[in-house]
Amino acid sequence: MRSAVTGRNDDLAWLFDPPPAGGGLERQIYRRIRSAVLERRLRPGTRLPASRRLAVDLGVSRGTVVAAYDQLIAEGYLEACTGRGTAVTALPDAMLGAPDAATAESTTAPASSTRAASFRMPAIGGGLDASCFPPGVPSLDTFPKREWSRCLAARARRLRAADMTYDNAAGLPILRETLIGHLNPARGVVAEPDQVIIVPSAQAAFDAAAICTTEPGDLIAVEDPGYPHAREVLAAAGGVLAPVPVDADGIEVAALTRLKRFRLVAVTPSHQYPTGVTMSLERRLRLLDLARERGAFILEDDYDSEFRYAERPIASLQGIDGGRTVIYVGTFSKSLAPGIRVAYLIAPPSLATTLARIVVGKGQVVAGVVQAALADFIAEGYLAAHIGRMRAIYAAKRDALVEALRANLPSEIRVEPPRGGLQLLLRLPDRTDDKAIVHELAAAGIEARALSRQSLRATGRGLLLGYAIAPLDAIAPAAKQLAAIVSRHLDG
Amino acid sequence: MRSAVTGRNDDLAWLFDPPPAGGGLERQIYRRIRSAVLERRLRPGTRLPASRRLAVDLGVSRGTVVAAYDQLIAEGYLEACTGRGTAVTALPDAMLGAPDAATAESTTAPASSTRAASFRMPAIGGGLDASCFPPGVPSLDTFPKREWSRCLAARARRLRAADMTYDNAAGLPILRETLIGHLNPARGVVAEPDQVIIVPSAQAAFDAAAICTTEPGDLIAVEDPGYPHAREVLAAAGGVLAPVPVDADGIEVAALTRLKRFRLVAVTPSHQYPTGVTMSLERRLRLLDLARERGAFILEDDYDSEFRYAERPIASLQGIDGGRTVIYVGTFSKSLAPGIRVAYLIAPPSLATTLARIVVGKGQVVAGVVQAALADFIAEGYLAAHIGRMRAIYAAKRDALVEALRANLPSEIRVEPPRGGLQLLLRLPDRTDDKAIVHELAAAGIEARALSRQSLRATGRGLLLGYAIAPLDAIAPAAKQLAAIVSRHLDG
Repeated sequence: MRSAVTGRNDDLAWLFDPPPAGGGLERQIYRRIRSAVLERRLRPGTRLPASRRLAVDLGVSRGTVVAAYDQLIAEGYLEACTGRGTAVTALPDAMLGAPDAATAESTTAPASSTRAASFRMPAIGGGLDASCFPPGVPSLDTFPKREWSRCLAARARRLRAADMTYDNAAGLPILRETLIGHLNPARGVVAEPDQVIIVPSAQAAFDAAAICTTEPGDLIAVEDPGYPHAREVLAAAGGVLAPVPVDADGIEVAALTRLKRFRLVAVTPSHQYPTGVTMSLERRLRLLDLARERGAFILEDDYDSEFRYAERPIASLQGIDGGRTVIYVGTFSKSLAPGIRVAYLIAPPSLATTLARIVVGKGQVVAGVVQAALADFIAEGYLAAHIGRMRAIYAAKRDALVEALRANLPSEIRVEPPRGGLQLLLRLPDRTDDKAIVHELAAAGIEARALSRQSLRATGRGLLLGYAIAPLDAIAPAAKQLAAIVSRHLDG
Repeated sequence: MRSAVTGRNDDLAWLFDPPPAGGGLERQIYRRIRSAVLERRLRPGTRLPASRRLAVDLGVSRGTVVAAYDQLIAEGYLEACTGRGTAVTALPDAMLGAPDAATAESTTAPASSTRAASFRMPAIGGGLDASCFPPGVPSLDTFPKREWSRCLAARARRLRAADMTYDNAAGLPILRETLIGHLNPARGVVAEPDQVIIVPSAQAAFDAAAICTTEPGDLIAVEDPGYPHAREVLAAAGGVLAPVPVDADGIEVAALTRLKRFRLVAVTPSHQYPTGVTMSLERRLRLLDLARERGAFILEDDYDSEFRYAERPIASLQGIDGGRTVIYVGTFSKSLAPGIRVAYLIAPPSLATTLARIVVGKGQVVAGVVQAALADFIAEGYLAAHIGRMRAIYAAKRDALVEALRANLPSEIRVEPPRGGLQLLLRLPDRTDDKAIVHELAAAGIEARALSRQSLRATGRGLLLGYAIAPLDAIAPAAKQLAAIVSRHLDG
C-alpha cells in the first residue's frame, strides 16, 4: 500500500506465497524474484516493496532483504533508483522470451557432434563382481589394499604445500625415477627421468602421442584386429586409421610397408591385443627399421606384459631401439588396479619436452599425492611382489580355463593357452556369428568380447575371454556353460 | 674349445670381459648377449658356449645361465638346436643395420607435428615461491593442508576394493552429489548428479566439450582478449577459433551474431579473463538467446567466481538457462589449490551421457580416493570456510596493490580495482609495448602477463597482475618497483 510499490502491495503477494521458510532466507528471496523476472511474471519497471516493509511482511531481518536486493542489483535483475526504491530492470522485452523460458523445454536442445558418437565403447569390465569372463580386468580381490592404503595415507599425512602447486604437472620427479628403476630391469626400457610423463590413463597417453606426432588427417597405422579403445582415441585426435593385419609374428610389416605415408604406428608387441601373439624379434627389428626409414614413430602399448607365464616378459621395443623412435605407454590398470588411474609415457628424447607440454596443456594430470604414494609403493617392492604373486594365480586360472574349454568343446576348436596376459582368444570357424554368441552368453551371465568387434577389416571370428577377475573355482563351470553355447552355435 | 662353440672359446671371451659381477647375474648375461647380437658383434649362426661350461667360466650357477639363454630364445635372439647347443638366430643381416644401431644417433629423429608446437604456453605460475605477481595462482601458504590431509588420509585408510575398479570413471556418485549441493547455492547451478562429470583439469573439460559439440573445422567463438590455455585446447581439438571482442559488459553478442556458423562459444561470464569484466544480465540473456537460436552450445568457464569482494558472486549462466544450452566448467585449482588436480563439467541433460563417454573414452579420469576425499572436504564445510577466509585475504591484497599502484603511477594510468578474482588488469596506453615491460619486469624478479599476449586480434595493452600468492607486505614494494618500470616506459 506504500507509494514505493506499484499498484497495491497485494500485487506482489503471489511472489512470496507460500512465504519463504527454513534456512537460507536471503537466497530464497533472491530466487523468487529472479525467477519471476526471467519468466516475465515481474515486468520491467515494476517496483519492489521497500526492504523494511518486505522484511516486516516476511518476518525476516531487514538485512536479509537488503542482501537479496543487493545481489539482484549486482546481477542486473533489479535497479536501485535513488529516492524511488528498487525496481525491475528495463530489460528488452524480447530477451526474456516466453514465460518460463528458464525452465521450459520448448526449444530443442542442439545435438552433439558426429565424432562424439564415435565414443561408443562400453566401459571396460564389470566392476567388482568377480564374473566370468570380462577381458582386460585384473583380479581385484587380491589387490594389495593394505599396502597401497598405507602408502597413500602416509603421503596424505605428510602433504607439503609444495605438492599443491602447478609444478611438476607432467610427473613428480620421484615417480619418474622410481618408474625407470622398475621398468629398466622389468621391461628393458632405457630412459632418463625427463623422458617419463605421467598421465591419468593409457588413453590420455595415446591422445598426447597422436597430437604430438601427427597432423589431423595423417595416417595412423593400427593392428587389425586391435584395441578398440586405442582406435577411438587416435581417430578422435584426427588420425585416419589404416588397419594392418596381424599374423603369428605380430603386425605384418610387409603390409605396413605398402602404406605410402604413415606418421605413427600403434602396436602391442609384447602381447598383441586381442590375439595374444608376441611380436617376433625379426618383426621388431623390421618395424623399427621401417619407422626410422619413414621418419615415423612407433606407439608401443605395453599394457599387460608383466604377466608372462613361461619365460620372463619379452623386452620392450623401446629398449631395442634405445628409445629414439618408440613412444612407450604403460599403465597400472592391469599390473595393479584400474582405480589407481595412473599411466605413463616414455618419450624419445627428441619429443620429451613437446609431449610434456601437450600433456600439461591438455590438462592430462595426476594428483601429486597419488604419484608420490605410487613411487613409495614401487620402491618398497610391493609392485614387484604383487606381480610375482599374480603371475602364479593368473597362470592357474588360465590353466583352469584351457582345461575346461578343451574338455567341453568339440575337437574342431583348438584352444591355445596364451603365454601371457589376462585373456584367452578362442578362435572359432569363420562361419560362426561371434556377436550372436556373445549376446547369448550375456543372457547367461557370461561376459565375452567378439573378435569381429575388435576388427576393422580382419575377418576372423572368436571370443576374447578374460580369466583374471573370476574366482578360480568359478572358471570350470562357466567355461562348461560357455562351451555348450558355442557348441550349439557350431551345430546350428 | 668345445665343439659346441664356433671357433675357439676365446672368441667370445670379450663378451664377458669384465665378467658379470654383483647382483642380477642372469640379467647381466642376458644383456651382454642381446646387445652383442643387435650390434652385430655376435653374428648369426654363432654358437654360444654350453650353459654348463659358461657357468663354470663365469663362476655362476648353471640355472642362471640357462634362464638367461631361455629368455634370449623366447625373445628370438638365440635358437636352441637340438644336439647342437644354442646359437645366434639367423636374422636377416640387413635388419641389424650398422654396428651399434641400437644406440647410435646416426639417423635423425623425426620431428613432432605442427600442431604439437601450438602447445607453447608456459605452465601457469611459478610454484610455491610467493612471488609478485603471477596471475592465476591462488595463495598456497593458506591452503588448508591439515583438513585436506585428514580427509585424504581417512579415505586412503578406508580404501575399498570397489574403489579400485573401472567403475564410476566419469565421477564418484558422492562427489557428484556433494558438488551440486555446493554449486547450487554458491553458483546458482541447477543440475542432477548424472550431469556432473569429474575430470583432472579445466583443460580436459574444454577438450571434452569441444569434441562433444563440434566437428573438426567448426568455428568456436572465443573472447578476445581471452584465456590462452583454453584457446590452445580448443584449437587442438580441431576448432577454428573466431575471436569476438569484449567490452565493459562482456563478450559483444552483436559481433558474435555476425558469425555465420558457430557451434560453441567459450566465455568467462562471472569474471572475464583477462579483463575482469562481469557479463551484464542483458548480455547473458542475449547470449543464451543467440545460442539457442543457432543451435550452439555455450562453454561457461567459471574459474574463479568464488572470489567476489563486493557482493555475492554473480550466479552462473548455467543456472539462468536451466542447464540446457550451457556446458559449465569449474575447477578447484583457484578455489583450493592447483595440486588437487580436479575439475568438473556440468553437462546439459542432452549431452550428459555423451560427454561422460568421451571423458572415459579419452581417459580423462581422476582417482576415486581423491574424489571421495574432496566430497568429504566439501561436506565438512572446509571448502566454504576456506573460500570465506580467502575472500577477506584476497580483498586486502587487492586493496594493497591498488593503493600502491595509484600512489606510484602517473595519473594518466587509471587503476581499476577488480570486483573479484585473483588478478588485476592494469590497462596501459596503446603506444606502450607491454611485452617489453613484462620482459623488463621479469629481469627485476616480477612476474606479469602482457595483455597483448592474451589477445588474438584485440589491440589493448596492459599488464595482468596476480595478487593472490604474494605475501601482503610484499605487495606495496613490488608494486612500487613495477610502477617505476612502467613509468619509464611511458616516458620513453
